[in-house]
Amino acid sequence: MLKLHSMQSSGNCYKVRLLLARLGLPFELVDVDVLSGENRTPDFMMKNPEGRVPLLEMPGGRFLAESNAILFYLAEGTPFLPADRLARAEVLRWMFFEQHSHEPAIAAARFWLKLVRGGRDLRTHDIDRWMEEGHAALRVMERHLARRPFFVDGVLSIADIALYAHTHVAEEGDFDLAPFPTVRAWLDRVAGQAGHVDMAWRPVGSRQMVSVA
Amino acid sequence: MLKLHSMQSSGNCYKVRLLLARLGLPFELVDVDVLSGENRTPDFMMKNPEGRVPLLEMPGGRFLAESNAILFYLAEGTPFLPADRLARAEVLRWMFFEQHSHEPAIAAARFWLKLVRGGRDLRTHDIDRWMEEGHAALRVMERHLARRPFFVDGVLSIADIALYAHTHVAEEGDFDLAPFPTVRAWLDRVAGQAGHVDMAWRPVGSRQMVSVA
Repeated sequence: MLKLHSMQSSGNCYKVRLLLARLGLPFELVDVDVLSGENRTPDFMMKNPEGRVPLLEMPGGRFLAESNAILFYLAEGTPFLPADRLARAEVLRWMFFEQHSHEPAIAAARFWLKLVRGGRDLRTHDIDRWMEEGHAALRVMERHLARRPFFVDGVLSIADIALYAHTHVAEEGDFDLAPFPTVRAWLDRVAGQAGHVDMAWRPVGSRQMVSVA
Repeated sequence: MLKLHSMQSSGNCYKVRLLLARLGLPFELVDVDVLSGENRTPDFMMKNPEGRVPLLEMPGGRFLAESNAILFYLAEGTPFLPADRLARAEVLRWMFFEQHSHEPAIAAARFWLKLVRGGRDLRTHDIDRWMEEGHAALRVMERHLARRPFFVDGVLSIADIALYAHTHVAEEGDFDLAPFPTVRAWLDRVAGQAGHVDMAWRPVGSRQMVSVA
Protein backbone atom coordinates (compact mmCIF):
# COMPACT_ATOMS: atom_id res chain seq x y z
CA MET A 1 0.00 0.00 0.00
CA LEU A 2 1.12 3.59 -0.57
CA LYS A 3 2.37 5.37 2.54
CA LEU A 4 2.15 9.16 2.87
CA HIS A 5 4.48 10.91 5.30
CA SER A 6 2.55 14.07 6.04
CA MET A 7 1.81 16.88 8.48
CA GLN A 8 -1.93 17.38 8.84
CA SER A 9 -1.80 21.20 8.94
CA SER A 10 0.52 21.57 5.91
CA GLY A 11 -1.09 22.76 2.69
CA ASN A 12 1.49 20.89 0.60
CA CYS A 13 0.54 17.66 2.40
CA TYR A 14 -3.19 18.37 2.14
CA LYS A 15 -2.88 18.55 -1.67
CA VAL A 16 -1.82 14.94 -1.75
CA ARG A 17 -4.46 13.72 0.74
CA LEU A 18 -7.13 15.53 -1.29
CA LEU A 19 -6.06 13.88 -4.56
CA LEU A 20 -5.75 10.43 -2.94
CA ALA A 21 -9.27 10.84 -1.52
CA ARG A 22 -10.66 11.95 -4.89
CA LEU A 23 -8.98 8.98 -6.58
CA GLY A 24 -10.25 6.59 -3.90
CA LEU A 25 -6.74 5.19 -3.48
CA PRO A 26 -6.07 3.46 -0.16
CA PHE A 27 -2.98 4.68 1.69
CA GLU A 28 -1.39 4.66 5.10
CA LEU A 29 -0.91 8.06 6.72
CA VAL A 30 2.27 8.60 8.75
CA ASP A 31 2.28 11.80 10.81
CA VAL A 32 5.48 13.83 10.71
CA ASP A 33 5.32 16.88 12.97
CA VAL A 34 7.62 19.42 11.38
CA LEU A 35 6.96 21.87 14.23
CA SER A 36 8.58 19.50 16.74
CA GLY A 37 11.40 18.51 14.36
CA GLU A 38 10.22 15.00 13.42
CA ASN A 39 11.33 15.75 9.84
CA ARG A 40 14.94 16.15 11.02
CA THR A 41 15.38 12.79 12.78
CA PRO A 42 18.06 10.47 11.32
CA ASP A 43 15.30 8.00 10.41
CA PHE A 44 13.33 10.54 8.38
CA MET A 45 16.45 12.07 6.80
CA MET A 46 17.27 8.57 5.48
CA LYS A 47 13.94 8.63 3.68
CA ASN A 48 14.23 12.23 2.43
CA PRO A 49 17.62 13.95 2.90
CA GLU A 50 15.90 17.30 2.38
CA GLY A 51 13.79 16.66 5.50
CA ARG A 52 10.54 17.73 3.90
CA VAL A 53 6.96 16.53 3.77
CA PRO A 54 4.92 15.38 1.99
CA LEU A 55 6.87 12.28 1.06
CA LEU A 56 5.27 9.38 -0.80
CA GLU A 57 6.61 5.91 0.00
CA MET A 58 6.01 3.25 -2.64
CA PRO A 59 5.45 -0.42 -1.78
CA GLY A 60 8.92 -1.30 -3.12
CA GLY A 61 10.59 1.14 -0.71
CA ARG A 62 11.14 3.98 -3.19
CA PHE A 63 10.34 7.53 -2.16
CA LEU A 64 9.02 10.54 -4.05
CA ALA A 65 9.32 14.09 -2.68
CA GLU A 66 7.83 17.46 -3.73
CA SER A 67 4.07 17.79 -3.41
CA ASN A 68 3.44 18.69 -7.04
CA ALA A 69 5.62 15.86 -8.40
CA ILE A 70 3.59 13.48 -6.20
CA LEU A 71 0.34 14.93 -7.58
CA PHE A 72 1.57 14.43 -11.14
CA TYR A 73 2.66 10.85 -10.42
CA LEU A 74 -0.69 9.93 -8.88
CA ALA A 75 -2.77 11.75 -11.52
CA GLU A 76 -1.24 10.26 -14.67
CA GLY A 77 -3.89 8.30 -16.53
CA THR A 78 -6.75 9.79 -14.47
CA PRO A 79 -9.21 12.63 -15.24
CA PHE A 80 -7.14 14.93 -12.99
CA LEU A 81 -4.43 15.23 -15.66
CA PRO A 82 -5.49 15.90 -19.27
CA ALA A 83 -4.39 13.48 -22.00
CA ASP A 84 -3.71 16.32 -24.46
CA ARG A 85 -0.03 17.24 -24.51
CA LEU A 86 -0.44 21.01 -24.47
CA ALA A 87 -3.16 20.88 -21.80
CA ARG A 88 -0.86 18.73 -19.65
CA ALA A 89 1.88 21.34 -20.03
CA GLU A 90 -0.62 24.06 -19.07
CA VAL A 91 -1.46 22.13 -15.90
CA LEU A 92 2.27 22.10 -15.11
CA ARG A 93 2.51 25.81 -15.97
CA TRP A 94 0.09 26.55 -13.10
CA MET A 95 1.79 24.08 -10.76
CA PHE A 96 5.18 25.76 -11.35
CA PHE A 97 3.49 29.14 -10.82
CA GLU A 98 2.17 27.76 -7.52
CA GLN A 99 5.57 26.61 -6.26
CA HIS A 100 7.47 29.65 -7.55
CA SER A 101 5.15 32.63 -7.13
CA HIS A 102 2.33 31.59 -4.78
CA GLU A 103 3.35 29.05 -2.10
CA PRO A 104 6.58 30.82 -1.02
CA ALA A 105 4.49 33.85 0.01
CA ILE A 106 1.02 32.55 0.87
CA ALA A 107 2.04 29.33 2.62
CA ALA A 108 5.07 30.90 4.33
CA ALA A 109 2.86 33.65 5.79
CA ARG A 110 0.40 31.10 7.18
CA PHE A 111 3.20 28.88 8.52
CA TRP A 112 4.92 31.65 10.46
CA LEU A 113 1.89 33.75 11.42
CA LYS A 114 -0.50 30.92 12.33
CA LEU A 115 1.36 27.65 12.97
CA VAL A 116 4.66 28.65 14.59
CA ARG A 117 4.29 30.00 18.13
CA GLY A 118 5.90 33.45 18.16
CA GLY A 119 6.53 33.25 14.41
CA ARG A 120 5.15 36.75 13.80
CA ASP A 121 7.99 38.25 15.84
CA LEU A 122 10.64 35.93 14.38
CA ARG A 123 9.84 36.89 10.78
CA THR A 124 8.69 40.52 11.05
CA HIS A 125 11.01 41.63 8.26
CA ASP A 126 9.49 39.12 5.78
CA ILE A 127 5.82 40.02 6.17
CA ASP A 128 5.74 42.94 3.69
CA ARG A 129 7.41 40.79 1.02
CA TRP A 130 4.96 37.91 1.58
CA MET A 131 2.01 40.31 1.33
CA GLU A 132 3.28 41.92 -1.88
CA GLU A 133 4.13 38.63 -3.62
CA GLY A 134 1.03 36.82 -2.34
CA HIS A 135 -1.34 39.55 -3.51
CA ALA A 136 0.39 39.57 -6.91
CA ALA A 137 -0.24 35.82 -7.19
CA LEU A 138 -3.89 36.24 -6.18
CA ARG A 139 -4.32 38.93 -8.86
CA VAL A 140 -2.91 36.54 -11.49
CA MET A 141 -5.42 33.89 -10.38
CA GLU A 142 -8.33 36.36 -10.30
CA ARG A 143 -7.58 37.46 -13.88
CA HIS A 144 -7.09 33.94 -15.23
CA LEU A 145 -10.29 32.60 -13.64
CA ALA A 146 -12.42 35.54 -14.86
CA ARG A 147 -13.65 33.54 -17.85
CA ARG A 148 -12.85 30.00 -16.73
CA PRO A 149 -14.40 27.66 -14.14
CA PHE A 150 -11.08 25.89 -13.51
CA PHE A 151 -7.45 26.58 -14.41
CA VAL A 152 -7.10 24.40 -17.52
CA ASP A 153 -9.62 23.31 -20.17
CA GLY A 154 -12.74 23.83 -18.06
CA VAL A 155 -12.26 20.79 -15.82
CA LEU A 156 -10.78 20.34 -12.36
CA SER A 157 -7.20 19.11 -12.56
CA ILE A 158 -4.21 18.81 -10.25
CA ALA A 159 -3.48 22.47 -11.09
CA ASP A 160 -6.65 23.41 -9.19
CA ILE A 161 -5.83 21.00 -6.34
CA ALA A 162 -2.30 22.43 -6.01
CA LEU A 163 -3.55 26.02 -5.93
CA TYR A 164 -6.60 25.29 -3.76
CA ALA A 165 -4.59 23.82 -0.89
CA HIS A 166 -2.86 27.03 0.18
CA THR A 167 -5.41 29.54 -1.20
CA HIS A 168 -8.36 28.24 0.82
CA VAL A 169 -6.46 28.96 4.07
CA ALA A 170 -4.72 32.14 2.85
CA GLU A 171 -6.69 34.20 5.40
CA GLU A 172 -4.84 32.33 8.18
CA GLY A 173 -1.72 34.08 6.81
CA ASP A 174 -3.33 37.55 6.96
CA PHE A 175 -4.46 37.62 3.30
CA ASP A 176 -7.91 39.15 2.82
CA LEU A 177 -9.72 37.36 -0.02
CA ALA A 178 -12.60 39.90 -0.12
CA PRO A 179 -11.09 41.75 -3.13
CA PHE A 180 -10.88 38.46 -5.07
CA PRO A 181 -14.50 37.38 -5.72
CA THR A 182 -13.56 35.22 -8.70
CA VAL A 183 -10.98 33.32 -6.65
CA ARG A 184 -13.56 32.85 -3.86
CA ALA A 185 -16.13 31.50 -6.33
CA TRP A 186 -13.50 29.06 -7.66
CA LEU A 187 -12.66 27.93 -4.10
CA ASP A 188 -16.36 27.16 -3.60
CA ARG A 189 -16.47 25.32 -6.93
CA VAL A 190 -13.50 23.12 -5.98
CA ALA A 191 -14.90 22.42 -2.49
CA GLY A 192 -18.33 21.65 -3.97
CA GLN A 193 -17.03 18.73 -6.06
CA ALA A 194 -18.31 15.26 -5.14
CA GLY A 195 -15.70 13.45 -3.05
CA HIS A 196 -13.97 16.62 -1.85
CA VAL A 197 -12.41 16.30 1.61
CA ASP A 198 -11.28 19.06 3.92
CA MET A 199 -7.83 19.60 5.41
CA ALA A 200 -8.63 17.63 8.59
CA TRP A 201 -9.63 14.49 6.64
CA ARG A 202 -7.72 11.29 7.33
CA PRO A 203 -8.13 7.89 5.66
CA VAL A 204 -10.25 5.34 7.51
CA GLY A 205 -8.20 3.43 10.06
CA SER A 206 -5.47 6.02 10.52
CA ARG A 207 -4.67 7.19 14.02
CA GLN A 208 -6.33 10.17 15.65
CA MET A 209 -5.35 13.52 14.24
CA VAL A 210 -2.88 15.37 16.40
CA SER A 211 -3.47 19.11 16.54
CA VAL A 212 -0.31 21.07 15.85
CA ALA A 213 -1.70 24.60 15.60
CA MET B 1 7.37 27.39 -36.61
CA LEU B 2 7.74 27.69 -32.85
CA LYS B 3 8.51 31.19 -31.61
CA LEU B 4 10.41 31.74 -28.36
CA HIS B 5 10.03 35.07 -26.58
CA SER B 6 13.23 35.24 -24.59
CA MET B 7 15.87 37.39 -22.93
CA GLN B 8 19.34 36.18 -23.87
CA SER B 9 20.89 36.68 -20.42
CA SER B 10 18.04 34.97 -18.51
CA GLY B 11 18.77 31.49 -17.16
CA ASN B 12 15.10 30.52 -17.41
CA CYS B 13 15.16 31.44 -21.11
CA TYR B 14 18.50 29.71 -21.70
CA LYS B 15 17.01 26.41 -20.46
CA VAL B 16 14.56 26.44 -23.34
CA ARG B 17 17.12 27.46 -25.99
CA LEU B 18 19.43 24.68 -24.76
CA LEU B 19 16.71 22.03 -25.04
CA LEU B 20 15.55 23.31 -28.46
CA ALA B 21 19.16 23.15 -29.67
CA ARG B 22 19.65 19.61 -28.29
CA LEU B 23 16.39 18.51 -29.96
CA GLY B 24 17.38 20.18 -33.22
CA LEU B 25 14.00 21.91 -33.38
CA PRO B 26 13.87 25.01 -35.57
CA PHE B 27 12.43 28.09 -33.87
CA GLU B 28 12.26 31.85 -34.20
CA LEU B 29 13.85 33.82 -31.38
CA VAL B 30 12.11 37.05 -30.32
CA ASP B 31 14.15 39.22 -27.95
CA VAL B 32 12.28 40.66 -24.98
CA ASP B 33 14.48 42.92 -22.88
CA VAL B 34 13.08 42.70 -19.37
CA LEU B 35 15.65 45.21 -18.13
CA SER B 36 14.16 47.92 -20.34
CA GLY B 37 10.55 46.88 -19.66
CA GLU B 38 9.74 45.20 -22.99
CA ASN B 39 7.89 42.51 -21.01
CA ARG B 40 5.44 45.13 -19.72
CA THR B 41 4.28 46.57 -23.04
CA PRO B 42 0.54 46.16 -23.83
CA ASP B 43 1.51 43.96 -26.78
CA PHE B 44 3.52 41.54 -24.65
CA MET B 45 1.00 41.56 -21.79
CA MET B 46 -1.62 40.39 -24.32
CA LYS B 47 0.59 37.36 -24.96
CA ASN B 48 1.42 36.71 -21.28
CA PRO B 49 -0.53 38.73 -18.68
CA GLU B 50 2.13 37.85 -16.11
CA GLY B 51 4.71 39.72 -18.23
CA ARG B 52 7.33 37.00 -17.96
CA VAL B 53 9.78 35.28 -20.27
CA PRO B 54 10.38 32.69 -21.56
CA LEU B 55 7.12 32.38 -23.43
CA LEU B 56 6.62 29.76 -26.14
CA GLU B 57 4.33 30.72 -28.99
CA MET B 58 2.81 27.83 -30.95
CA PRO B 59 2.01 28.03 -34.68
CA GLY B 60 -1.75 28.21 -33.93
CA GLY B 61 -1.29 31.30 -31.74
CA ARG B 62 -1.40 29.56 -28.37
CA PHE B 63 1.12 30.49 -25.69
CA LEU B 64 2.83 28.51 -22.96
CA ALA B 65 4.55 30.21 -20.00
CA GLU B 66 6.84 28.94 -17.19
CA SER B 67 10.25 27.69 -18.30
CA ASN B 68 9.88 24.23 -16.77
CA ALA B 69 6.41 23.65 -18.22
CA ILE B 70 7.87 24.57 -21.63
CA LEU B 71 10.74 22.09 -21.10
CA PHE B 72 8.25 19.34 -20.22
CA TYR B 73 6.08 20.12 -23.25
CA LEU B 74 9.03 20.01 -25.64
CA ALA B 75 10.64 16.93 -24.06
CA GLU B 76 7.64 14.59 -24.04
CA GLY B 77 8.40 11.60 -26.25
CA THR B 78 12.13 12.40 -26.44
CA PRO B 79 15.13 10.96 -24.53
CA PHE B 80 15.14 14.08 -22.32
CA LEU B 81 12.06 12.83 -20.42
CA PRO B 82 11.97 9.18 -19.26
CA ALA B 83 9.09 6.97 -20.36
CA ASP B 84 8.86 5.28 -16.94
CA ARG B 85 6.13 6.87 -14.83
CA LEU B 86 8.09 7.10 -11.57
CA ALA B 87 11.24 8.35 -13.32
CA ARG B 88 9.15 11.05 -15.01
CA ALA B 89 7.82 12.10 -11.60
CA GLU B 90 11.39 12.19 -10.26
CA VAL B 91 12.38 14.51 -13.10
CA LEU B 92 9.51 16.78 -12.05
CA ARG B 93 10.59 16.46 -8.39
CA TRP B 94 13.91 18.10 -9.29
CA MET B 95 12.24 20.68 -11.54
CA PHE B 96 9.92 21.74 -8.69
CA PHE B 97 12.93 21.83 -6.35
CA GLU B 98 14.59 24.11 -8.90
CA GLN B 99 11.71 26.58 -9.09
CA HIS B 100 10.94 26.52 -5.35
CA SER B 101 14.29 26.19 -3.58
CA HIS B 102 17.03 27.03 -6.11
CA GLU B 103 16.05 29.62 -8.72
CA PRO B 104 14.44 32.14 -6.29
CA ALA B 105 17.83 32.48 -4.53
CA ILE B 106 20.49 31.67 -7.13
CA ALA B 107 18.88 33.38 -10.12
CA ALA B 108 17.61 36.34 -8.09
CA ALA B 109 21.12 37.00 -6.75
CA ARG B 110 22.60 36.97 -10.28
CA PHE B 111 19.77 39.14 -11.64
CA TRP B 112 20.17 41.88 -9.05
CA LEU B 113 23.93 41.67 -8.45
CA LYS B 114 25.05 41.21 -12.07
CA LEU B 115 22.35 42.24 -14.53
CA VAL B 116 20.58 45.20 -12.91
CA ARG B 117 22.67 48.37 -12.73
CA GLY B 118 22.81 49.41 -9.08
CA GLY B 119 20.88 46.27 -8.06
CA ARG B 120 23.30 45.48 -5.23
CA ASP B 121 22.25 48.65 -3.42
CA LEU B 122 18.56 48.24 -4.21
CA ARG B 123 18.37 44.74 -2.70
CA THR B 124 20.97 44.84 0.10
CA HIS B 125 18.51 43.39 2.62
CA ASP B 126 17.86 40.28 0.47
CA ILE B 127 21.46 39.18 -0.08
CA ASP B 128 21.88 37.19 3.16
CA ARG B 129 18.67 35.26 2.47
CA TRP B 130 19.70 34.48 -1.11
CA MET B 131 23.08 33.23 0.09
CA GLU B 132 21.59 31.03 2.80
CA GLU B 133 18.88 29.52 0.58
CA GLY B 134 21.17 29.19 -2.44
CA HIS B 135 23.89 27.39 -0.50
CA ALA B 136 21.28 25.06 0.99
CA ALA B 137 20.13 24.19 -2.55
CA LEU B 138 23.72 23.60 -3.69
CA ARG B 139 24.27 21.25 -0.73
CA VAL B 140 21.19 19.25 -1.73
CA MET B 141 22.55 18.95 -5.28
CA GLU B 142 26.06 18.03 -4.06
CA ARG B 143 24.67 15.22 -1.90
CA HIS B 144 22.32 13.87 -4.57
CA LEU B 145 24.98 13.84 -7.29
CA ALA B 146 27.58 12.12 -5.07
CA ARG B 147 26.76 8.72 -6.54
CA ARG B 148 24.99 9.72 -9.74
CA PRO B 149 26.18 11.19 -13.04
CA PHE B 150 22.87 12.99 -13.66
CA PHE B 151 19.80 13.77 -11.55
CA VAL B 152 17.52 10.88 -12.60
CA ASP B 153 18.26 7.35 -13.78
CA GLY B 154 21.82 7.99 -14.94
CA VAL B 155 20.91 9.92 -18.06
CA LEU B 156 20.69 13.61 -18.85
CA SER B 157 17.08 14.83 -18.67
CA ILE B 158 15.26 18.14 -18.51
CA ALA B 159 15.88 18.02 -14.72
CA ASP B 160 19.61 18.51 -15.48
CA ILE B 161 18.88 21.19 -18.07
CA ALA B 162 16.63 23.11 -15.65
CA LEU B 163 19.23 23.00 -12.86
CA TYR B 164 22.23 23.60 -15.14
CA ALA B 165 20.92 26.90 -16.50
CA HIS B 166 21.19 28.89 -13.27
CA THR B 167 23.89 26.83 -11.54
CA HIS B 168 26.52 27.29 -14.25
CA VAL B 169 26.36 31.07 -13.79
CA ALA B 170 25.82 31.01 -10.00
CA GLU B 171 29.21 32.67 -9.48
CA GLU B 172 27.84 35.78 -11.24
CA GLY B 173 25.50 36.04 -8.22
CA ASP B 174 28.36 35.83 -5.68
CA PHE B 175 28.06 32.06 -5.09
CA ASP B 176 31.43 30.31 -4.77
CA LEU B 177 31.22 26.82 -6.29
CA ALA B 178 34.65 25.76 -4.97
CA PRO B 179 33.13 23.85 -2.00
CA PHE B 180 30.89 21.89 -4.40
CA PRO B 181 33.25 19.68 -6.47
CA THR B 182 30.52 17.18 -7.33
CA VAL B 183 28.27 19.91 -8.67
CA ARG B 184 31.20 21.30 -10.70
CA ALA B 185 31.94 17.87 -12.18
CA TRP B 186 28.26 17.54 -13.13
CA LEU B 187 28.30 21.01 -14.76
CA ASP B 188 31.26 19.84 -16.88
CA ARG B 189 29.43 16.60 -17.71
CA VAL B 190 26.34 18.51 -18.92
CA ALA B 191 28.42 21.00 -20.92
CA GLY B 192 30.45 18.14 -22.45
CA GLN B 193 27.43 16.53 -24.10
CA ALA B 194 27.35 16.49 -27.90
CA GLY B 195 25.14 19.29 -29.16
CA HIS B 196 25.42 21.41 -26.00
CA VAL B 197 25.18 25.16 -26.63
CA ASP B 198 26.18 27.99 -24.33
CA MET B 199 24.04 30.82 -23.03
CA ALA B 200 24.96 33.17 -25.91
CA TRP B 201 23.82 30.71 -28.57
CA ARG B 202 21.11 31.80 -30.98
CA PRO B 203 19.46 29.82 -33.77
CA VAL B 204 20.81 30.37 -37.29
CA GLY B 205 19.16 33.34 -38.94
CA SER B 206 18.14 35.17 -35.77
CA ARG B 207 19.18 38.76 -35.34
CA GLN B 208 22.41 39.81 -33.67
CA MET B 209 22.54 39.27 -29.95
CA VAL B 210 22.00 42.46 -27.95
CA SER B 211 24.12 42.70 -24.83
CA VAL B 212 22.04 43.58 -21.79
CA ALA B 213 24.59 43.09 -19.00
